[in-house]
Amino acid sequence: MNVAIIGAGALGLYYGALLQKSGVETHFLLRRDYAAIKAGGLTVHSINGDFHLPQLHAWQTPAEMGTADLVIVGLKTFANDRYQELIAPLLKPDTLILTLQNGLGNEEALAALFGAERIIGGVAFLCSNRGEPGTVHHLGAGRIVLGEFVPGDNGVLERLAGMFRAAGVDCCSTGDLKKARWEKLVWNIPFNGLAALLQQPVDRLLAVQATRALIRTIMLEVITAGNAQELRSAIPEAFAEGMIEFTETMGAYRPSMQIDREEGRELEISAIFRMPLQFAASKGIAMPRVEMLATLLEQTWITKPPA
Amino acid sequence: MNVAIIGAGALGLYYGALLQKSGVETHFLLRRDYAAIKAGGLTVHSINGDFHLPQLHAWQTPAEMGTADLVIVGLKTFANDRYQELIAPLLKPDTLILTLQNGLGNEEALAALFGAERIIGGVAFLCSNRGEPGTVHHLGAGRIVLGEFVPGDNGVLERLAGMFRAAGVDCCSTGDLKKARWEKLVWNIPFNGLAALLQQPVDRLLAVQATRALIRTIMLEVITAGNAQELRSAIPEAFAEGMIEFTETMGAYRPSMQIDREEGRELEISAIFRMPLQFAASKGIAMPRVEMLATLLEQTWITKPPA
Repeated sequence: MNVAIIGAGALGLYYGALLQKSGVETHFLLRRDYAAIKAGGLTVHSINGDFHLPQLHAWQTPAEMGTADLVIVGLKTFANDRYQELIAPLLKPDTLILTLQNGLGNEEALAALFGAERIIGGVAFLCSNRGEPGTVHHLGAGRIVLGEFVPGDNGVLERLAGMFRAAGVDCCSTGDLKKARWEKLVWNIPFNGLAALLQQPVDRLLAVQATRALIRTIMLEVITAGNAQELRSAIPEAFAEGMIEFTETMGAYRPSMQIDREEGRELEISAIFRMPLQFAASKGIAMPRVEMLATLLEQTWITKPPA
Repeated sequence: MNVAIIGAGALGLYYGALLQKSGVETHFLLRRDYAAIKAGGLTVHSINGDFHLPQLHAWQTPAEMGTADLVIVGLKTFANDRYQELIAPLLKPDTLILTLQNGLGNEEALAALFGAERIIGGVAFLCSNRGEPGTVHHLGAGRIVLGEFVPGDNGVLERLAGMFRAAGVDCCSTGDLKKARWEKLVWNIPFNGLAALLQQPVDRLLAVQATRALIRTIMLEVITAGNAQELRSAIPEAFAEGMIEFTETMGAYRPSMQIDREEGRELEISAIFRMPLQFAASKGIAMPRVEMLATLLEQTWITKPPA
């Protein structure tokens, strides 16, 4: 199986490097890191041990890459309008597309363009940041939960999970991708949102009792909305407390949206906030605090003074 | 009638200067501006015309000031724990106390210390900032609505309103101080809160449709909570739209809480947010967005990195 990584940021570079290291032929579409990786390869600084790949299949345009058996999409979701341009050149009739992107609506958009049967969703629990060009930092976790957009039983999930596991990635499959996506939103919405808005890492947010209570209330809004989406089994309310306790182990972790804001990048507000709000509204569920948080984040972004 | 101004910030200096200019014997308790005013007097830069008072009754401690017929309280509400120390030395048996402070709970606290009958509340609609020591800037408005904490009919309100009007201040009285306070909160809660949180002036907040809708929704939460407080007549929902339209005339106005945050001062979260939330909760009314805004503001304040 050969793999093409589209959107080789902190997530794409990390998983791609592990696949390449395990012997999978992996091609990277690069922009910022192209020159550095062509010249000196890729260095992964990981809590599981650093390693260096002296040579990668590095490309600057999808046309050069040839077709792939599996396309892994790691784009920031605000670049989803480039799906056609970036992915179409890589496809054979049986190419699988795995999106490891944040939020909701990515599988739907990919399915509309390329057909629903080949779309796999992956919910990644990964703490990683880009470093200098040619380096990526893996700070914690890394688990991937895979699910088919159109549930079937053709063993494709187990094949992919096996590939990731052979590369050292904790990976499993689920029959309820939708539930896995909503479970991740239970974390992403309050922690990405509040950390980006207030520009404070997760430990400072959890240190104040009223903010901790707000985080929990936001989580319950997300759980209620998720449970209205015809999941196979409900997300229990206790999931919120579990996520908060898990977050306490992260220390001064800065969620990706906080880093995006600090570095002046666009925020993934549509995929992480507005799409879930739409899915909730379609079932008659309001998420007033999530809506307010989305509006506040948009206000910081839309009216950002020129740099 | 002689007047003592306690808390001579932008509001106290402005109204005190107008009273002094109109011939009322006015004493100022000063801290930051004491030396500058002692040396060079007070300059008011006003949209109604600049003026200079070469000499004021300026004091550094309340003990020096002697007693007053009227004490005007302009303290920031987070300094309310200094009421006893700052006001008690100024009181005769018939001294009136007028608080022009923001938010709720000020009359109650003054009444508990000094007796309810002498407490007058004033809701001030004033755009003013302090300039260099010895100067104050009047940017717009200035209206005061006076009301007795314990409604009576002894003409005291008309006497005070007459004094302010003679000094050029648009001033009227109300039989429903509580309603006037809640009406001001309809503006203060969203605009002070969001401007301070996002560090954006009011015109930028109103420029984004979703933020404008959020402001309106927050205003409706405040109106609902206010209308549960046994007002003599209800605040209509249309009051929200009226306040928004009025705010559009203000241009790039920075509410006081935004300036407080920019200058690293404590924020008036208790008087403007937590007290109203308590009054609302006491009537079984929740204000989820107001609560969330208060929590976000506290989070910025409590965890402010050392300067």
